[in-house]
Amino acid sequence: MPEHRIRLGPWLLAAAMLCSPGTNVLHAQEPDKTVVRIAELVIDPAQLGAYKAIVMEEMDDSVQLEPGVLAIYSVAEKDKPNHLRFFEIYVSDEAYRAHIESAHFKKYVALTQRMIQSRALIETTPVQLSAKARQPKSVD
Amino acid sequence: MPEHRIRLGPWLLAAAMLCSPGTNVLHAQEPDKTVVRIAELVIDPAQLGAYKAIVMEEMDDSVQLEPGVLAIYSVAEKDKPNHLRFFEIYVSDEAYRAHIESAHFKKYVALTQRMIQSRALIETTPVQLSAKARQPKSVD
Repeated sequence: MPEHRIRLGPWLLAAAMLCSPGTNVLHAQEPDKTVVRIAELVIDPAQLGAYKAIVMEEMDDSVQLEPGVLAIYSVAEKDKPNHLRFFEIYVSDEAYRAHIESAHFKKYVALTQRMIQSRALIETTPVQLSAKARQPKSVD
Repeated sequence: MPEHRIRLGPWLLAAAMLCSPGTNVLHAQEPDKTVVRIAELVIDPAQLGAYKAIVMEEMDDSVQLEPGVLAIYSVAEKDKPNHLRFFEIYVSDEAYRAHIESAHFKKYVALTQRMIQSRALIETTPVQLSAKARQPKSVD
């Protein structure tokens, strides 16, 4: 969510709307607490299938059971199927902390710790998260 | 709701469950056409504000105007505000190709080409995309 639009006061916002009637005011809101985290994992190729089965269950559990987990996306690099990247969206830092304390996350950690060869965790500052309101293949 | 549950008839679903009782039937589905692309851009720090304003408009245009663009997320690395990462979800390869031919994308490219210091584009194979059906701050 664009920070500069968040900080606009009501007068400035009204002025902006008058000056540019096409402005999408969806972005004039309170400071955003959304947390996005990126993880880059390299999985033992011999255990990739087992790892995926476990992490996919954990991802669905997180999104279905935790109100603060908006999305967890997992993709593999096209030519390196055991190099996985995760893009995770939480409503707040509290929601992220609750996630890593959840039973399903702890189970995932215990089951997969010997499958992960390397791990990079990247903290981020969201610039903008643009998504259709209803995603056709989501779980809820 | 995962697509395969919509598409699998009850008989096929029952057969799948009988044949492999441990399989998570959520993922017993037709090959997915969803395309996820990752981009890692380094922006000229002196032009970062201008770049962000342009790309944020382009992201919203894409999600609002193009039926095949499900989401475009942009975040900065926490300690490197000019190192941006994009996570982009398209319904298909055709949707991605239509996106890069769109007027708003071409305008973005023309306006920002001198602002981008380096660019890495990463093609991916989705493992799983788990998201709540309705995202509270999305545009549509």
